[in-house]
Amino acid sequence: MRVPMRLLPMLLLLSACATAGAPVADVQMEEQRIAELNRQWVERVAARDAAWIANLYTAEGRIMPANAPLAQGRPAVEAAWRGIFELPNLNLTFQTTDLEFSDAGDMAYDVGTYSLSFDGPQGRIQDQGKYLVVWEKVNGEWKVAADMFNSNLPMQ
Amino acid sequence: MRVPMRLLPMLLLLSACATAGAPVADVQMEEQRIAELNRQWVERVAARDAAWIANLYTAEGRIMPANAPLAQGRPAVEAAWRGIFELPNLNLTFQTTDLEFSDAGDMAYDVGTYSLSFDGPQGRIQDQGKYLVVWEKVNGEWKVAADMFNSNLPMQ
Repeated sequence: MRVPMRLLPMLLLLSACATAGAPVADVQMEEQRIAELNRQWVERVAARDAAWIANLYTAEGRIMPANAPLAQGRPAVEAAWRGIFELPNLNLTFQTTDLEFSDAGDMAYDVGTYSLSFDGPQGRIQDQGKYLVVWEKVNGEWKVAADMFNSNLPMQ
Repeated sequence: MRVPMRLLPMLLLLSACATAGAPVADVQMEEQRIAELNRQWVERVAARDAAWIANLYTAEGRIMPANAPLAQGRPAVEAAWRGIFELPNLNLTFQTTDLEFSDAGDMAYDVGTYSLSFDGPQGRIQDQGKYLVVWEKVNGEWKVAADMFNSNLPMQ
């Protein structure tokens, strides 16, 4: 295609504009990428793989569990997950109900539900709850910047 | 200023580009806007103004309290806040510890701490916790898309 010389600056500007901060070209693709990470995350929970899970967070990523302080940074996040994995016969799954992106596709929030059970001192504990996860794209990869969850059930 | 006619399309494009999705020109200004909304929010909590607070959320905004189900949409959010205001002699304050923006300045997440006290059946309850709020810019105004909080203290 031949482009008249006088249009070149405009085309270069349009190209810069598109790469700098234009809306996500393919939200569906980004949704699939995060869905795949969530699928692997649930799988790594079943495998008790705290190291893999900690690496899913950003370097400054935070886990914010109910009835425990915020833990920030991969070593602290990994320790928090090791703590969760100490629950006897833990079963934990979660799934997205809503996933929304920033215009430029560099940030997203993920609202979903979890189902948790483990052996308590007086028998099996069954918990149902919700989570809010903020994803950030770091060097082209989605990472968890903040991860918070709490129960839907009344306090015992 | 006189602009040569042949440059007009480029200037119009540059203008569209700047408003569509360019990086935030002034993060500090956006931080101040959200800080001011948080200041008013704490003030409206003290005034028990659930209607004002509900209007701070997006039309699809969610409140995600511990030990209660997610409530979505302004009427449900307002009802949830009315429930909180039923706690006798409630005192609730909160403050941001970290506020991060998407590249285009259309989404932000706000991590902070809260301090809550009220009269329980066996005396004053003192709670310390944390929150994660996702802000979205809707028609130029920051609104709360998701608001989650939970306690740092061990379960009683």
